Amino acid sequence: ESLAQLVGVCSMMHLPLESSPEGLDATFIGVPLDTGTSNRPGARFGPRQIREESVMLGAVNPSTGALPFQSLRVADLGDVKVNLYNLQDSCRLIREVYQNIVAAGCIPLTLGGDHTITYPILQAVAKKHGAVGLVHVGAHINTTDKTLGEKIYHRTSFRRSVDEGLLDCKRVVQIGIRGSSTVVDPYRYSRSQGFRVVLAEDCWMKSLVPLMAEVRQQMGDKPLYISFGIDALDPAYAPGTGTPEIAGLTPSQALEIIRGCQGLNVVGCDLVEVSPPYDLSGNTALLAANLLFEMLCALPKVTTI
Amino acid sequence: ESLAQLVGVCSMMHLPLESSPEGLDATFIGVPLDTGTSNRPGARFGPRQIREESVMLGAVNPSTGALPFQSLRVADLGDVKVNLYNLQDSCRLIREVYQNIVAAGCIPLTLGGDHTITYPILQAVAKKHGAVGLVHVGAHINTTDKTLGEKIYHRTSFRRSVDEGLLDCKRVVQIGIRGSSTVVDPYRYSRSQGFRVVLAEDCWMKSLVPLMAEVRQQMGDKPLYISFGIDALDPAYAPGTGTPEIAGLTPSQALEIIRGCQGLNVVGCDLVEVSPPYDLSGNTALLAANLLFEMLCALPKVTTI
Amino acid sequence: ESLAQLVGVCSMMHLPLESSPEGLDATFIGVPLDTGTSNRPGARFGPRQIREESVMLGAVNPSTGALPFQSLRVADLGDVKVNLYNLQDSCRLIREVYQNIVAAGCIPLTLGGDHTITYPILQAVAKKHGAVGLVHVGAHINTTDKTLGEKIYHRTSFRRSVDEGLLDCKRVVQIGIRGSSTVVDPYRYSRSQGFRVVLAEDCWMKSLVPLMAEVRQQMGDKPLYISFGIDALDPAYAPGTGTPEIAGLTPSQALEIIRGCQGLNVVGCDLVEVSPPYDLSGNTALLAANLLFEMLCALPKVTTI
Amino acid sequence: ESLAQLVGVCSMMHLPLESSPEGLDATFIGVPLDTGTSNRPGARFGPRQIREESVMLGAVNPSTGALPFQSLRVADLGDVKVNLYNLQDSCRLIREVYQNIVAAGCIPLTLGGDHTITYPILQAVAKKHGAVGLVHVGAHINTTDKTLGEKIYHRTSFRRSVDEGLLDCKRVVQIGIRGSSTVVDPYRYSRSQGFRVVLAEDCWMKSLVPLMAEVRQQMGDKPLYISFGIDALDPAYAPGTGTPEIAGLTPSQALEIIRGCQGLNVVGCDLVEVSPPYDLSGNTALLAANLLFEMLCALPKVTTI
Amino acid sequence: ESLAQLVGVCSMMHLPLESSPEGLDATFIGVPLDTGTSNRPGARFGPRQIREESVMLGAVNPSTGALPFQSLRVADLGDVKVNLYNLQDSCRLIREVYQNIVAAGCIPLTLGGDHTITYPILQAVAKKHGAVGLVHVGAHINTTDKTLGEKIYHRTSFRRSVDEGLLDCKRVVQIGIRGSSTVVDPYRYSRSQGFRVVLAEDCWMKSLVPLMAEVRQQMGDKPLYISFGIDALDPAYAPGTGTPEIAGLTPSQALEIIRGCQGLNVVGCDLVEVSPPYDLSGNTALLAANLLFEMLCALPKVTTI
Amino acid sequence: ESLAQLVGVCSMMHLPLESSPEGLDATFIGVPLDTGTSNRPGARFGPRQIREESVMLGAVNPSTGALPFQSLRVADLGDVKVNLYNLQDSCRLIREVYQNIVAAGCIPLTLGGDHTITYPILQAVAKKHGAVGLVHVGAHINTTDKTLGEKIYHRTSFRRSVDEGLLDCKRVVQIGIRGSSTVVDPYRYSRSQGFRVVLAEDCWMKSLVPLMAEVRQQMGDKPLYISFGIDALDPAYAPGTGTPEIAGLTPSQALEIIRGCQGLNVVGCDLVEVSPPYDLSGNTALLAANLLFEMLCALPKVTTI
Ligand SMILES: [Mn+2]
Ligand SMILES: [Mn+2]
Ligand SMILES: [Mn+2]
Ligand SMILES: [Mn+2]
Ligand SMILES: [Mn+2]
Ligand SMILES: [Mn+2]
Ligand SMILES: [Mn+2]
Ligand SMILES: [Mn+2]
Ligand SMILES: [Mn+2]
Ligand SMILES: [Mn+2]
Ligand SMILES: [Mn+2]
Ligand SMILES: [Mn+2]
Repeated sequence: ESLAQLVGVCSMMHLPLESSPEGLDATFIGVPLDTGTSNRPGARFGPRQIREESVMLGAVNPSTGALPFQSLRVADLGDVKVNLYNLQDSCRLIREVYQNIVAAGCIPLTLGGDHTITYPILQAVAKKHGAVGLVHVGAHINTTDKTLGEKIYHRTSFRRSVDEGLLDCKRVVQIGIRGSSTVVDPYRYSRSQGFRVVLAEDCWMKSLVPLMAEVRQQMGDKPLYISFGIDALDPAYAPGTGTPEIAGLTPSQALEIIRGCQGLNVVGCDLVEVSPPYDLSGNTALLAANLLFEMLCALPKVTTI
Repeated sequence: ESLAQLVGVCSMMHLPLESSPEGLDATFIGVPLDTGTSNRPGARFGPRQIREESVMLGAVNPSTGALPFQSLRVADLGDVKVNLYNLQDSCRLIREVYQNIVAAGCIPLTLGGDHTITYPILQAVAKKHGAVGLVHVGAHINTTDKTLGEKIYHRTSFRRSVDEGLLDCKRVVQIGIRGSSTVVDPYRYSRSQGFRVVLAEDCWMKSLVPLMAEVRQQMGDKPLYISFGIDALDPAYAPGTGTPEIAGLTPSQALEIIRGCQGLNVVGCDLVEVSPPYDLSGNTALLAANLLFEMLCALPKVTTI
Repeated sequence: ESLAQLVGVCSMMHLPLESSPEGLDATFIGVPLDTGTSNRPGARFGPRQIREESVMLGAVNPSTGALPFQSLRVADLGDVKVNLYNLQDSCRLIREVYQNIVAAGCIPLTLGGDHTITYPILQAVAKKHGAVGLVHVGAHINTTDKTLGEKIYHRTSFRRSVDEGLLDCKRVVQIGIRGSSTVVDPYRYSRSQGFRVVLAEDCWMKSLVPLMAEVRQQMGDKPLYISFGIDALDPAYAPGTGTPEIAGLTPSQALEIIRGCQGLNVVGCDLVEVSPPYDLSGNTALLAANLLFEMLCALPKVTTI
Repeated sequence: ESLAQLVGVCSMMHLPLESSPEGLDATFIGVPLDTGTSNRPGARFGPRQIREESVMLGAVNPSTGALPFQSLRVADLGDVKVNLYNLQDSCRLIREVYQNIVAAGCIPLTLGGDHTITYPILQAVAKKHGAVGLVHVGAHINTTDKTLGEKIYHRTSFRRSVDEGLLDCKRVVQIGIRGSSTVVDPYRYSRSQGFRVVLAEDCWMKSLVPLMAEVRQQMGDKPLYISFGIDALDPAYAPGTGTPEIAGLTPSQALEIIRGCQGLNVVGCDLVEVSPPYDLSGNTALLAANLLFEMLCALPKVTTI
Repeated sequence: ESLAQLVGVCSMMHLPLESSPEGLDATFIGVPLDTGTSNRPGARFGPRQIREESVMLGAVNPSTGALPFQSLRVADLGDVKVNLYNLQDSCRLIREVYQNIVAAGCIPLTLGGDHTITYPILQAVAKKHGAVGLVHVGAHINTTDKTLGEKIYHRTSFRRSVDEGLLDCKRVVQIGIRGSSTVVDPYRYSRSQGFRVVLAEDCWMKSLVPLMAEVRQQMGDKPLYISFGIDALDPAYAPGTGTPEIAGLTPSQALEIIRGCQGLNVVGCDLVEVSPPYDLSGNTALLAANLLFEMLCALPKVTTI
Repeated sequence: ESLAQLVGVCSMMHLPLESSPEGLDATFIGVPLDTGTSNRPGARFGPRQIREESVMLGAVNPSTGALPFQSLRVADLGDVKVNLYNLQDSCRLIREVYQNIVAAGCIPLTLGGDHTITYPILQAVAKKHGAVGLVHVGAHINTTDKTLGEKIYHRTSFRRSVDEGLLDCKRVVQIGIRGSSTVVDPYRYSRSQGFRVVLAEDCWMKSLVPLMAEVRQQMGDKPLYISFGIDALDPAYAPGTGTPEIAGLTPSQALEIIRGCQGLNVVGCDLVEVSPPYDLSGNTALLAANLLFEMLCALPKVTTI
């Protein structure tokens, strides 16, 4: 089947390639899907390019002192074999793989793929943990209801998640939202559900350490999922993305957000919307690889120097 | 509806933008769809980029002497509003638009889009003209049956067309086919249907004028459709494509093929598989714009100097 | 005439293409001229690329609440047919087109083109409004007198404007100026005319909201023109420009400047110096399209949510 | 020692930089002008990039056995200080520099710049040698009369040259001409003057050795100028050019043409239309550097192994 | 050790990654070394990028009918852990790994790396098979003696091989040689050793099938090594290489050469000089992946359809 | 006249090319070496590209008022002829050239090259001035001891310098350090030697003017060397580098650091790790050229307006 040719791996951070989550504390896994994107495609190559740029990462985090591989068993489970010609079927395939991972007690760290994939991942996560808290970092609010009659694409992920009760709406924060919009409905929807919407302009030229103190308070010790769209960052830092928006966050703010999640009950993470054809330098993928490493360092039970 | 944002036009060759095919002899029209591609996406931007590079084209063809705008009324009908999130639905939308064009007696010259789109176009064309002859130029034979259970994507266009009786199989020629393959079935299938399969290696370092004399003989004066995948050409000439294959045709051979169709009863043409994100110079789109102009010059009733 | 091939349009934000300014409150219009540039050319393709990247913009500005299309009639007038082989003649052609626009009571929002074009635009604007205030954002002070005997190119725009009395010199502010210089004269000239020169280093790591409060005070309710060279921004954000200078402004500062003009009597705007050949990602044009949309949102009489 | 080639500030082929043509048999010289181009600019950077890529060239031509530096004194005279803001004045500046070179008995090999520059160079050459023969290689016939009233830009070079009696029209050959055209006049003009017009399609898949035997016959031993537009080659080989045309010549044909001029009375050469912003790999400039070296090897009095 | 970070793999054609050659008939293996290159570096990333582009290759060769995986056990052995800071030591490391492979009766197909690596590979191969025949395809003759006192870099591979008796000099053919040269010695040296030197210009516009018939005659049934520098091809087809030379071979000629080796006693192959930083489209790596697959198809004992 | 900047063969800032340091107060000099890099190569082309982008720089620094060419005799000494195939030998060649420069009383401003080169430069500098203070700006701490047994590459420069007593360890500051690490030893080593290590995160969103006040205090009036790795900056500003690290410094901070050295006893400077193959826009080289100009402006005895 030629479709399987596109998936396949060069491992994240030189970790062992495994085919089962059994015995793992956490795992990297790719979802090479981009047919849910509304503008520039290419995120199907995100997992491959993030892995490629990850090979220069070291195991030590000199800034936080984290030594993630000392206390956690981590691997790379390769890619989900998505169906590029059928978004609905892809969602089913993703959900099934993640149910298996989560059931094994393994925390998934996902290399996307466009933002559509967070929806089936949350289905799997919520099946195990119940409705979860969410730290969503990204440029787009992704609570659109539908377009052209389609209910599944990258702008509807969190709307569908609310529809199915996957989110603990009082513990949802969206950071970095911005850009012109065709309609105002999604903003109203998010706020009406109780989501905290932190616009990009509320972050300009500010440290996000205070914000994260509030977020930690809000999340408590209940299960939490981190969904990070690379388009949260300004296109200067992350040109390789499908729907770039001007005046975004900086990498230091991205690190403040992720490091600010340390100590929380993180049950899953994704880094989505990396589109390598628009990333000629490879540096968007490098940034993504670093952020995924930082997410790993922020997981529960990671020891430090 | 945000989906409509992606479609929209800067006109082909500065032609007038029209919304109806009535009164036109021929029309350019874009189909910005790429979700049927198996490797590198981006053909959704093909129509936009081909139009952009077309603006430097002149109305005179000094080589053939053709003056297409002297005898034909030609316009640009803009883009079909495809559904990027649903291939089946996109096929329906394309078919309906083309049925309308063909019904008006207007010959469509299509700016693709991936090769999936030829299937619904042929549905519309055959509805009017009956089973048509086909000059298919491209690297891939596109007679795969299905993958992962999906029957519609860019490798199945001509299989589906045969299934539905859209092709006059004794008048089908496929030129430029090459590349490794996961299975041998599609080659056998094409030949078993009576298609003439001209491999790229049968074309290496040869003029294709003799081949086209035979093709003209074979086609006679019955209706004929030209489907040109830009990947027929070597990637040196056309890097901006989704599934490049080495050792392909040259631009001069492409011109020999199209000019060789002059005098035939051409009822429609497409130029597909142009993927601008992989075409940094814009020259693949420039090549495509030129080939579309040459197709126009090869239509019935075009006068010459 | 082959020169006309280069101009031509794909409309800004999918707005209707019009040929006359009559009945319009504001209009986008392109000036594809780059022969006044001193280093990297390419700004002739600025209008085309800005339009291309504008197609994903929505009509709502969630940050300011502006709904510009609800209260204003806006169109795209296409491109001025400049004479690429004669700068003087191009200035004449631009001036004539803009006199017609301004006379119709329509506010022009210009897609440049290099900074030379602001001079003939100001000629047209001042003919109607008298000497105008100026918010000039850019890296270069553009008050050079001449080079090699030539008095018209992109470094002399505001010197020529002062020569002809087009500017109300007490209401001129230049923001973002920086870079090494061959001579010191232009800095002295600007200051001697009473211009407020805000160097880039005076903006580093600062919100420009306080500056803009002062600028609003200075401008009062008299007519004001905004001329925005994309090189005001750091090349990280806007690599696609002809004369990049290090250590520039950020996109959030650019938004603060434009939004800070809301409520003023803006009679025209331009966004110049976008050079697509140096903008491989298209993101400089995307930034420019956003800034032009924000300028539209800042025009008098725009309603909000 | 080849290692030394990589280091050093770039002159053409590491030749000494001179300020005077006195005592030189031949010289490389740059003309960084691109304001006469009708589509993509950037040829102003041609001389710089050709020099940069020339540094890896060796002094020996193993194919022809030529050892040009053994018998000729050759240098690099740097660049003509053109006036980018005034085409007419640039022509004057070029003409004056070349009159000085030619008067010194030095053969100029020019690094362009767009094709406009051949006109003032021919003025200087003809002032010394009288009307000269011409081997013009390029995609465009460049005998347009004027556009928008302008008589000087890159499409009019040879029309102006005929107007002023600079060409011996019976000894003019144009090779590689192709592409659609807005008008048919220039083709008729060239032929009416007695030029031999060899279309690109007359060259497809053929050795040009027989053609050059005829050209040598035609040129006899009278003075001859070679003007080589890099757009003569297919864009696959030379993407870095301002007005690319599909289905052009190959590098081996280019070498056949230049080597075919060996033994003729060549009094000057240019290589024009290299536009580095569109040459991301640098390989168009590398090709140009090699062709200029081959022109040097084809000059009168060059000894061989 | 941070050096190990650079090596590591995404497997060739989705083959199993193995750590030992035992039980294999043939293997792909990478040598990520580029410190022997004289101009543009980057070939260290050749293996990684070739593997990446190989993932779309199928197991069937429709042109030759070869089914290599039906009769041969093939794997990917990953990369040799070279020492980037010491060329001599890298040669030792390569030689040792290959001695192990060859000793196991496994045929190595190498993903380079610059042409330096062929020298230690030939040391290993000759240790097992004695002096071997050589089909060397490339732009450069690589029989320089030394530069700056250094005897090992990519221009000396075959000189060192002769010095050590690794080559059966009567069975050495070098195809595609061209380009200017700093000295003439290497050409004389190759010929004086009895090598057959086939210049690129002897190949222009010709099928190489007749040449390969002669080569097969010359090679007989004795052991033969194929060393293929991607710079043999024209830079239009293979821009991603360290020392591009104009007017090279075409992909169809490359296929004729490799397919022409079918039936010979091939004991090893390499594909070298792929430099991904200069291969923005990825198509040079795609070409390399295809040529390596064709080499596999040409190995002894491969069955056909 | 700024127009003259564009024309001419590139030396640094159009300075005269000299072959001897005699009589010079300061000099630019290139070291085109990149074989000490651990990831992406290409810094061998740093000097060439920095010179190319330097040509648009003017002689006046409007921000600081510095007029460096009024009081200092400055030239460009070209490039050190390094041995690309032998790192040890390259270090010897560099050391010898710099000993000659320093002995002449000339301050070297180096265009790198990877960070390896700072070690032999410091050998030469310390031979004249004794152990020097160091302001090291960069992402990497470069005090690794060895890798794979190799003691010389770009991560060991300052370790070797300490080993040989080249540094006055109480006057060493390292600014901008960050990134994951394979081991923690280098951080400990730097601190144990008394170096002040200022992590990038200590710089985020802060002016570095206060830091530099402390540094000036620490340095006193004793000799000081500035070593600036362009990777100190965030990859958004400097993508063209060999080992990019996320979340780095900004250009304004870089200027604050260099301008903060004004008044100190600076005896040498370098700007290293610029890799042009990864700098498609040329803007990393432009940034480097500007920083080198600012270093020149910060040298002792420079006069101001
Ligand atoms: Mn990749
Ligand atoms: Mn998003
Ligand atoms: Mn485009
Ligand atoms: Mn195809
Ligand atoms: Mn464009
Ligand atoms: Mn400017
Ligand atoms: Mn350059
Ligand atoms: Mn031309
Ligand atoms: Mn890669
Ligand atoms: Mn080679
Ligand atoms: Mn360069
Ligand atoms: Mn570093």
